Amino acid sequence: MISFIGGTGPEGKGLALRFAIAGERVFIGSRDAERGLAAATEVQELLPAGLPKDYIRGGANEEAANTGYAQLGDAVFIAVPYAAHKDTLKALTESLKNKVIVDVVVPLAFEKGRASATIVEAGSAAEEAAQILPNSKIVSAFHNISAADLMVPDRSLDCDVIVCSDDDSAKTRIMGLAEMILGVRAVNGGGLANSRYVEDLTALLLNINRTYKAHSSIRITGI
Amino acid sequence: MISFIGGTGPEGKGLALRFAIAGERVFIGSRDAERGLAAATEVQELLPAGLPKDYIRGGANEEAANTGYAQLGDAVFIAVPYAAHKDTLKALTESLKNKVIVDVVVPLAFEKGRASATIVEAGSAAEEAAQILPNSKIVSAFHNISAADLMVPDRSLDCDVIVCSDDDSAKTRIMGLAEMILGVRAVNGGGLANSRYVEDLTALLLNINRTYKAHSSIRITGI
Repeated sequence: MISFIGGTGPEGKGLALRFAIAGERVFIGSRDAERGLAAATEVQELLPAGLPKDYIRGGANEEAANTGYAQLGDAVFIAVPYAAHKDTLKALTESLKNKVIVDVVVPLAFEKGRASATIVEAGSAAEEAAQILPNSKIVSAFHNISAADLMVPDRSLDCDVIVCSDDDSAKTRIMGLAEMILGVRAVNGGGLANSRYVEDLTALLLNINRTYKAHSSIRITGI
Repeated sequence: MISFIGGTGPEGKGLALRFAIAGERVFIGSRDAERGLAAATEVQELLPAGLPKDYIRGGANEEAANTGYAQLGDAVFIAVPYAAHKDTLKALTESLKNKVIVDVVVPLAFEKGRASATIVEAGSAAEEAAQILPNSKIVSAFHNISAADLMVPDRSLDCDVIVCSDDDSAKTRIMGLAEMILGVRAVNGGGLANSRYVEDLTALLLNINRTYKAHSSIRITGI
């Protein structure tokens, strides 16, 4: 079971869709349970014919945090806007204990259409999550993937997902999950201290998107 | 004419070699003129047979800064260690006036073999150069290219060079230069404010190199 805290944005919905296509059960959470349900219905409509719609459910963030079993390696994705990152995690600390937490949050600011990375005291959003959730297994991944491309079920992504974590077992689990997405290769990005480079790179890619009118992503070459 | 301030390290020598192969005249400068000369001789030895060795010269940084003509679009590369970045540029401000300056410097620190990006007050090494050299045309590029691969004359690089500058004409000139290197595609990285993301990414790639025992680089996909 893969659940999403704040999964109603394009990246949360896109990842939920791809994981459901790969055979995972997903749960899309939101601050507002109605919006979580609506997002689940929207993703169900995008599922290729023949795939079971009841693999995709939605509701409140609290339910998303409590869904799944830590001992089965079930993962909870954090996909809220950075402005809500700290408070959301603090409110759910108990439910997220011992679980694999995948932080996809990018601390970004926009000025006149130009993206820039926001400075985070902990070093990165993922390291901030590790401070707030010392008893969870924090994994940082999926920052540079195109949400728009994820939402088109048969589109190959042609990108690498760089995965950082200080927990090797959790990292391996999420690298495997990333490779379930058509076209994606998972790259071991080392420890959580490297997450800032991957998070910040998103600002560059968004600015490149603007120049090239494209959905850019990256591949690591030479490995 | 392409000249290098502090060009005796692997990246300076590697770029000098590739530009010489592409038909450019290069000058490798060093704080110590003897070391600049020695680096030039070393690069001459790597030139494929039949190419003119006298296209590669070497000497002092001051000569490198004064070599070439701003009005011909000649470019001066800054390839010193970050620790010497500010002082080197301050000492050469007058010679570098009006010229295209390509800053390839990455502010890095190492601890127990792990690389991390050093915080630069100006935001990035390239923006620091722009503050010190307000009358030069600063371009930031070549941070993520493998120096080891550059030194093997016939090896294709399989990477993108992301080029950032606030001067469109200088940026175009350097994007053209980057594409002279076998396998390289130049990507317009926008203004100099984006340079920090490209510089910092180098720390991630060095850490990935350690994990994968490789010379990693990047490609931007989807553009």
